[in-house]
Amino acid sequence: MTSLAMIEAAAQRIDGRARRTPLLSSPFLDEIAGRRVFVKAECLQHTGSFKFRGGWSALSGLDQAVRQRGVIAFSSGNHAQGVALAAKLFGVPCVIVMPSDAPKLKIDNTRAYGAEVVLYDRARDDRDAIGAALSAERGLTLIKPFDEPLVIAGQGTVGLEIAEQAAEEGIASGSVLVPCGGGGLTSGVALALEAKAPGLVVQPCEPEEFDDTARSLEAGEIRRNARLSGSLCDAIITPQPGDITFPILKRLCGPGFAVSEDEVMQAMALAFTRLKVVIEPGGAVALAAALFRREGLSGDAVIAIASGGNADSAIFRAALERFL
Amino acid sequence: MTSLAMIEAAAQRIDGRARRTPLLSSPFLDEIAGRRVFVKAECLQHTGSFKFRGGWSALSGLDQAVRQRGVIAFSSGNHAQGVALAAKLFGVPCVIVMPSDAPKLKIDNTRAYGAEVVLYDRARDDRDAIGAALSAERGLTLIKPFDEPLVIAGQGTVGLEIAEQAAEEGIASGSVLVPCGGGGLTSGVALALEAKAPGLVVQPCEPEEFDDTARSLEAGEIRRNARLSGSLCDAIITPQPGDITFPILKRLCGPGFAVSEDEVMQAMALAFTRLKVVIEPGGAVALAAALFRREGLSGDAVIAIASGGNADSAIFRAALERFL
Repeated sequence: MTSLAMIEAAAQRIDGRARRTPLLSSPFLDEIAGRRVFVKAECLQHTGSFKFRGGWSALSGLDQAVRQRGVIAFSSGNHAQGVALAAKLFGVPCVIVMPSDAPKLKIDNTRAYGAEVVLYDRARDDRDAIGAALSAERGLTLIKPFDEPLVIAGQGTVGLEIAEQAAEEGIASGSVLVPCGGGGLTSGVALALEAKAPGLVVQPCEPEEFDDTARSLEAGEIRRNARLSGSLCDAIITPQPGDITFPILKRLCGPGFAVSEDEVMQAMALAFTRLKVVIEPGGAVALAAALFRREGLSGDAVIAIASGGNADSAIFRAALERFL
Repeated sequence: MTSLAMIEAAAQRIDGRARRTPLLSSPFLDEIAGRRVFVKAECLQHTGSFKFRGGWSALSGLDQAVRQRGVIAFSSGNHAQGVALAAKLFGVPCVIVMPSDAPKLKIDNTRAYGAEVVLYDRARDDRDAIGAALSAERGLTLIKPFDEPLVIAGQGTVGLEIAEQAAEEGIASGSVLVPCGGGGLTSGVALALEAKAPGLVVQPCEPEEFDDTARSLEAGEIRRNARLSGSLCDAIITPQPGDITFPILKRLCGPGFAVSEDEVMQAMALAFTRLKVVIEPGGAVALAAALFRREGLSGDAVIAIASGGNADSAIFRAALERFL
């Protein structure tokens, strides 16, 4: 179980490795939202998302002998790149198991970070069997994307930074909106803020029709998404909250928000023109909620995490064309 | 004449007002450049460019009684917004004199920062006469865009930050590439680095056909541009280096670089995909030189300032479409 002490230990291990990302703002966004809006720009993190923190935390938390044998992860996206870069910096083997229909750019990027990419056919192959065989054969340690205490501790370092930055900005109370897939970032941030900035309430944000976490929080027990594909916000689509993350979310989070794809694209366009940062669709759900769900927020300030910036160029262009 | 003491005094006045912008990097850019590349992301500064530093430095350096009467500036771009926001934060009147054919978005933004915008007709009106009449009538102080010691001192605070950040990254020698218009940023950064990081050499960067500073440095005396319009990099087009800035550039800078518009657009696209920041064309000339002028650079690291992010949406989309 992830504790504040684990998050603080992860912060020490990560110091000088992860970027302390800035808290950005613009009076133009404040006006849209009707309150002060701050964006924690994790899109500027190494590999373009917060996932590097969890990857580094997990690898640096392994026993050296275990780490030396290498790591393995299942991911077609940001987790793959975060783990791959962490492994590269440690100089240990890294295998990423990806579907063969993953975008070529993501496969190339993961390889460029030094990982061995093993492709599988979604229709024919058993991903878990492939991973288990490789792990057994080579002694690789599986790095799970969110239901892993060391990963949650790494993502929680975002929360420690938010607590410090909120104090610098004079924000004593308000909501911290977090793009939520399996809940690793959301639960880590919630644990950090519980201890360091108890006036800040974490609220998870998801795309409409994929709001398993919001519905689970409302029900008080885990609910699944009806489907798992077809969202613009592919980076944060998971079947349901994690077994480890959900109890943390249930204990600490306020109600979740669900935003539309139009709102996500408009938030991406506004981040382009007002903040000068690139946010991917899944990373923009929290900013969208900050801007367009004002009636659901209280307090005079809101902090939205922009969790990633690995946006597809065509989708980004479409967002600019439609909303600017 | 701007001195290190003036830059350090400006840094004290600006502390907590300007953002300490991050130094970003990506292994993918290092590979293109053949050396380590760092980008000083002033596009993330308030108002989307480094100009807020000069504006704040100038206003905060005025006697209070003078400042209270208000300020005036001529600008259709980043200087206008930088001065307007500084005046708004001080709560003093601000008049920006802009051509009536300036983009509506820039006029709207300048007004949104609280400035009174006075429009003039480029063909019929005498801009300087309009400004002089307003200044005399209301007692406004003119804030020049670059040939003003307090403005140079403010821009020089970028150089102080670069010196600190370069030391953190272990960069003892190399080039600092600076997008150069009138030379306010370039001269301020060069003065700061002369004292704080003497192993770093400043080299100004400009668009091809508008490389007045590079040609002036080569000639040892001020040279003019043949024309003043028709560049994608409108934010950094000036007739010639300033009377105050040029002697500083001549004393401290290495040779200048001129880059093509294609190289600028490619640098913008690479900043989108590898750094997740938005850079406007004029702000991307230094990154373009860092990536595509490797033979003109020495040392194992280069630092490029991304001076602004107020990119036109259509131009940005075109850059992504062509180069990604």
